[in-house]
Amino acid sequence: MATVTELLQPVELDLETLLTDLRSLIGAGHPILQAAAEHLFSAGGKRLRPGIVLLISRALSADGDLSARHRRLAEITEMIHTASLVHDDVVDEAATRRGVATVHSRFNHRVAVLAGDFLFAQASWHLANLDNLAVVKLLSRVIMDLADGEVKQGLYRYDTGQSFATYLEKSYCKTASLMANSVQAAGVLSGESVEHQKLLHHFGRQLGLAFQVVDDILDFTGSEQQLGKPAASDLASGYLTAPALYALEEHLALARLIEREFSEEDDLDQALELVRNSQAISRSRQLAEDFARESREAIAWLPDSPCQRALMELPDFVLSRLY
Amino acid sequence: MATVTELLQPVELDLETLLTDLRSLIGAGHPILQAAAEHLFSAGGKRLRPGIVLLISRALSADGDLSARHRRLAEITEMIHTASLVHDDVVDEAATRRGVATVHSRFNHRVAVLAGDFLFAQASWHLANLDNLAVVKLLSRVIMDLADGEVKQGLYRYDTGQSFATYLEKSYCKTASLMANSVQAAGVLSGESVEHQKLLHHFGRQLGLAFQVVDDILDFTGSEQQLGKPAASDLASGYLTAPALYALEEHLALARLIEREFSEEDDLDQALELVRNSQAISRSRQLAEDFARESREAIAWLPDSPCQRALMELPDFVLSRLY
Repeated sequence: MATVTELLQPVELDLETLLTDLRSLIGAGHPILQAAAEHLFSAGGKRLRPGIVLLISRALSADGDLSARHRRLAEITEMIHTASLVHDDVVDEAATRRGVATVHSRFNHRVAVLAGDFLFAQASWHLANLDNLAVVKLLSRVIMDLADGEVKQGLYRYDTGQSFATYLEKSYCKTASLMANSVQAAGVLSGESVEHQKLLHHFGRQLGLAFQVVDDILDFTGSEQQLGKPAASDLASGYLTAPALYALEEHLALARLIEREFSEEDDLDQALELVRNSQAISRSRQLAEDFARESREAIAWLPDSPCQRALMELPDFVLSRLY
Repeated sequence: MATVTELLQPVELDLETLLTDLRSLIGAGHPILQAAAEHLFSAGGKRLRPGIVLLISRALSADGDLSARHRRLAEITEMIHTASLVHDDVVDEAATRRGVATVHSRFNHRVAVLAGDFLFAQASWHLANLDNLAVVKLLSRVIMDLADGEVKQGLYRYDTGQSFATYLEKSYCKTASLMANSVQAAGVLSGESVEHQKLLHHFGRQLGLAFQVVDDILDFTGSEQQLGKPAASDLASGYLTAPALYALEEHLALARLIEREFSEEDDLDQALELVRNSQAISRSRQLAEDFARESREAIAWLPDSPCQRALMELPDFVLSRLY
């Protein structure tokens, strides 16, 4: 199985340019923002989101070239993503992300609010100046979905009565909307037909959902070292994801533990046992595989190219994190 | 002199509709956001910003009517303004605003970040759906200026070497940009000529600057009760405004007090004495009067109507807070 670096190899140089641009954009003139930008953009993230936008953009171009506006779109995507991470870490009081201290714990929550706002503001400014109203609508929808997802996530904490549809909606808002709409926006900038735009949206949506379900599985099956955060931290925080919701269908006892918010000793360990000793993990895997397959099928029409081949492998790469 | 309620009387019903809309928009479905929205939109703010947009919108209409898009623009203006206040209060660690507890002190900084993000997101979504790229650009410029102003304000704290131009730029970013660009956007939606758009922008810009200079004077001359916050709190926080910068030209001793960040007992009282016993306040008043006059002159071409008469009185109303 290819690594993410191998998959993103066709746009490796584009991603380097993007990082340089982003660093100079956010840091310009302010020492603390500069430090926050360095911290953010050096934290070894995989740049998967802008990478996908860049791969799609090149795959849609007859000569494989990348326009300045596609490049800017990828930057905007990463700015929105990073801004939302920085603010979510404040809201969720997360101390680390991918094993690295979050901005608000490395600096303080005031710097985190400022840095996030600055990134959001830069994103909406550059977005407006892409001079394409359809693209503005797609990306402003993402900004709204991200806020909505964060609100929903807080709202349904420890709520064992929530439906699976609620979980999927929250996952769409927090993860898949950015992929779906930014990929579609690349199609808009390339002058793709409405039909192709819909398929691009579907590709990003199903890929994002697969990605999120895999993340949610790993929270139960991964080690602290793998995750860069304590294992089962979602469940411990009351965020009920696919494995927990499936397990709730099998084990009534799980609901009681969750509803009392793991307040008794061993509650969390017991809950973990119940999830692991159920069909929950294998059903979640099946769900992720379905999303991945649907994602791949949605771009079957892309003409053959190095970028197209990387895109076709992406859904399997997302799943490969499970094995 | 008219009160603000009297001035806004021609759009009083519009403002009531706007508040109802905003409350239902931000609170929808989330109890804590609902509480935050109630808290925010009931805090007795003057709604001066949407009020100005509404007055201009009606003044530009041949029959004095208000279109749904102008109404929405006024809402977006208030959403952006409120979102930036909520986040600024986190960044500035302000406990009260206009004598009322800030969202982050009434709830906590996590709710404040979430509520601000949610408002920004709603604003950019509704903005995109006004379907006018020129308006999107004007308002996204505002969002960028607000973030930029907040960064600048932090950057120049206790910096006695900053130029007067820096202060005006910061004031433009934090206060005048929203007024200038939202008023211009109302002109765009009304199909005004480029020349009229420029004058509308100038009206909002100079009005915003007058407003900010008056605020900065009141920080030195007002009582805690009048201000809804401790007197001289700008200076105490190291934010150097027009009076302080003018006083620095007269009193070298003031620089020393500021540069050591008022670390010795009585430093702040001494600094206040120096500002008050200088030409600083009267020079600042003159500056505000100049801005107010330029603001009024910029809309001399508006046809006579109740809204136009209110707009012509606004600059004097802004100054009247000084007397």
